[in-house]
Amino acid sequence: MKVVALAGGVGGAKLVDGLAQSLPPDDLTVIVNTGDDFEHWGLKICPDLDTVCYTLAGLANPETGWGRADETWHVLESVSALGGEDWFRLGDRDLGLHLERTRRLREGGLLSEITRDFCNAWGIGPTVLPMSDDPVPTLVATDEGLLPFQEYFVKRKCQPRVSGFIFEDVERSKPVSGMLDAFRESDLVVICPSNPWVSIGPILAVPGIMAALTPPPPLQDALSPLPIPILDEFDELGEGGVQGGGVRVVAVSPIISGKAIKGPAAKMYTELGIQPSALAVARHYRELITGFVFDRVDADQETAIRELGIQTLVTDTIMNTPHDRRRLAHDVLQFCERLISDKIESEMKERSRNDR
Amino acid sequence: MKVVALAGGVGGAKLVDGLAQSLPPDDLTVIVNTGDDFEHWGLKICPDLDTVCYTLAGLANPETGWGRADETWHVLESVSALGGEDWFRLGDRDLGLHLERTRRLREGGLLSEITRDFCNAWGIGPTVLPMSDDPVPTLVATDEGLLPFQEYFVKRKCQPRVSGFIFEDVERSKPVSGMLDAFRESDLVVICPSNPWVSIGPILAVPGIMAALTPPPPLQDALSPLPIPILDEFDELGEGGVQGGGVRVVAVSPIISGKAIKGPAAKMYTELGIQPSALAVARHYRELITGFVFDRVDADQETAIRELGIQTLVTDTIMNTPHDRRRLAHDVLQFCERLISDKIESEMKERSRNDR
Repeated sequence: MKVVALAGGVGGAKLVDGLAQSLPPDDLTVIVNTGDDFEHWGLKICPDLDTVCYTLAGLANPETGWGRADETWHVLESVSALGGEDWFRLGDRDLGLHLERTRRLREGGLLSEITRDFCNAWGIGPTVLPMSDDPVPTLVATDEGLLPFQEYFVKRKCQPRVSGFIFEDVERSKPVSGMLDAFRESDLVVICPSNPWVSIGPILAVPGIMAALTPPPPLQDALSPLPIPILDEFDELGEGGVQGGGVRVVAVSPIISGKAIKGPAAKMYTELGIQPSALAVARHYRELITGFVFDRVDADQETAIRELGIQTLVTDTIMNTPHDRRRLAHDVLQFCERLISDKIESEMKERSRNDR
Repeated sequence: MKVVALAGGVGGAKLVDGLAQSLPPDDLTVIVNTGDDFEHWGLKICPDLDTVCYTLAGLANPETGWGRADETWHVLESVSALGGEDWFRLGDRDLGLHLERTRRLREGGLLSEITRDFCNAWGIGPTVLPMSDDPVPTLVATDEGLLPFQEYFVKRKCQPRVSGFIFEDVERSKPVSGMLDAFRESDLVVICPSNPWVSIGPILAVPGIMAALTPPPPLQDALSPLPIPILDEFDELGEGGVQGGGVRVVAVSPIISGKAIKGPAAKMYTELGIQPSALAVARHYRELITGFVFDRVDADQETAIRELGIQTLVTDTIMNTPHDRRRLAHDVLQFCERLISDKIESEMKERSRNDR
C-alpha cells in the first residue's frame, strides 16, 4: 500500500515514524507543513520539517519531541550574553542543520532538494517533502493583532486569543515538485494527528492540493463511465492507484477528550467558537476524508461522526512509546485496507447494478 | 601614559592582555587586524578581533590561545554530518558571537559599533577597534596561486610557498572612527608581537595610518619651529600628546631565535628571501619605530639593531603565563617611559642649542 502522510510537528512526526516502521521506505511519502518556518538569528528555521526528519532519523529529543537528543545550549548562552534574542531556543546540534540549510538556500538551493540531501545523509528511507519550495508564512490573527506564527506560538506562548489565520502568499505558492505525483501514485493519504488549523491547514491551502484530494465526481458523471479507481498513464500500481481527485483520505484526530496532546489546537477551536472534540475535527475534514480515526475515550462521538458519511476507527491514539507509534500506524493501515476493499466491493456491486 | 596597541591574533592578544592589566582602561586602545576576516557558513568571522576580545574578557581557550574555554563542537559535528564544510573549526560558544555579529551586520550595523557593544557586554575595559569598518581581505600570493587568507592559513595549513600579499580594497578603506584620535591622544603606540606581514601589515596599509605614525619632519622644518611634541587643539594631554606624525612607536619582536612562537611569520620571511630574525623585524619596521623590544636569546643582534637608529630593550618576551604577559607589558611600558623622558631631554637640549 503506497501512502502519503500529511504532517505538522510532534504528533504528526510520531505517526509518521510509526508508518515508516510499518511500510517499505519507497511506499511512504511525507508532506510536511512549512507554514511555521521563519527566520531567526539570520537562519532559516523549519520547525515541523526538522521535527519529522529528526524523528525519522532517530535523532529527536525523546523528552520534548522536537529538537535533538543529547542537546547542548552553548550557542544560545553566548548569543544571550551578547544581548541577542533568546526567546526561541535553538540547541547546538540543531543549529548545524539551520546553518547548513541557510547557507545552501542562500546559494540558490531549493528547500526540497536540501531536505532530500539531508534525509540521505541521515539515512532516512521515506521521502520527506516540504509542502512547497515557496515560503508560505502563517500569520495568526489575534486580539493583539496579526502575529507571525512563532511569535504567537513560542514568544507569546499561544496566549493571545485567535480569530483566524493567514497563509501569506499561499495563492502564489506551488505544491512541491513530486507531491502531486505522490498523491496520484498513492492508495491512501493519512492526515496525521497534527493541528488542523496551523499544521494541516497550510498544506491543504497550497493551490492544487485540495483538488488532488477531494473525492471524485459521482459515479453517474457522464465523463467517468467507469467507477473509481480510474487509472491513468502515470499509474504504475494497478488497481490501487487513483488519479488526482480520487485518492482515499483518512484523518487521525489530534483532539482526545476535548484536548490536544500538545499545542494550541483545542484552544484555537474554542476561540473560533467551536467546541473542541474528535467530532469537530471530523467535521473540519468532512469534505476530504473517507475515514476517521479517533480515541476510545471519545467513542460516544462515533455515531455523530458516521452520520457525516465518514467511516470510523475507534482505537488507542495516544503515542507515548515507540511501540504506540507502530501500533497506531498498524491500526490506521489495517483500517484503510478494509476501507479500500469495502469500497472496491461496493463499487463492484454499484457497477454490476449499473450494468444490469 | 596613554597607549595604542596594534595587534593580530594570539601573540598580540597576550601582550594586549598584559597592557590591559597594567594600565587604566581609558588609557589603552587596541587596534586589531581585520585582514583575516572572512565569511564561513554564511557568517562573518573575525579571528583576530575575537582572539583579542576573548583574551581580554578572560574567555579564551588557554590551550590554543584562540577560541573559547570549555568549548564544545556539536554544531560542527552536525554540519559535518550533513556534508557541510568542516575545515574551519568553529566551536559552539564561539558561534554565538558570529551569529549575533552577522545578524547585526546584515541589519546595517558597523563592525566597530558591534565590537564596542560586545566588549561592554563582556565587561572589557580598554577600547577595542577593528582597524576599519570596511572589509580589507588579505590574499596570499603563493606557488599555488592567490589564496584567501584562511584558505592559506587553516585549510592549506600554511604549506604553499608565499611570494607576496594583497590587502584587497585597502586603498578604498578608511581607518575606523576613533583610531586617528587615539593616535593623536596617545603617548605611545605598541606594535604587538604579531605577524608583521599579515597581522600588522594590513593595519599599516589602511590609508592615513602610516602618516599618523611616521616620525615628524626634521626639526629644521620651517613649518615646525618647535621641536616635538607638537600640541594641537585636539590634545588634552599636555606634554605627552603628539599630533599625528609624531607619536612614538615601539615594536615587540614576534621572532625569537629565528622562529615564530606561533604561525607562519618565520616561514614567510624565509620564503620572501629574508632570514627570519629579530633584526629582520626591526628592519621591517625601521621607518616607523623608535624602540624595539626583543628576546634575550637574540641579544647578539642588539648592536645591529641599534645601528638602524633604533633604541632597544632586550628582555624575556615569551608569554607562557598570565604573569609573563604582565611582566612583558611592564618592561615595554618602562622602556617607553625611559624613551620618552630621554627624548624629551634630548629635545630640550636640542631646543636650547637652537635657541642659542
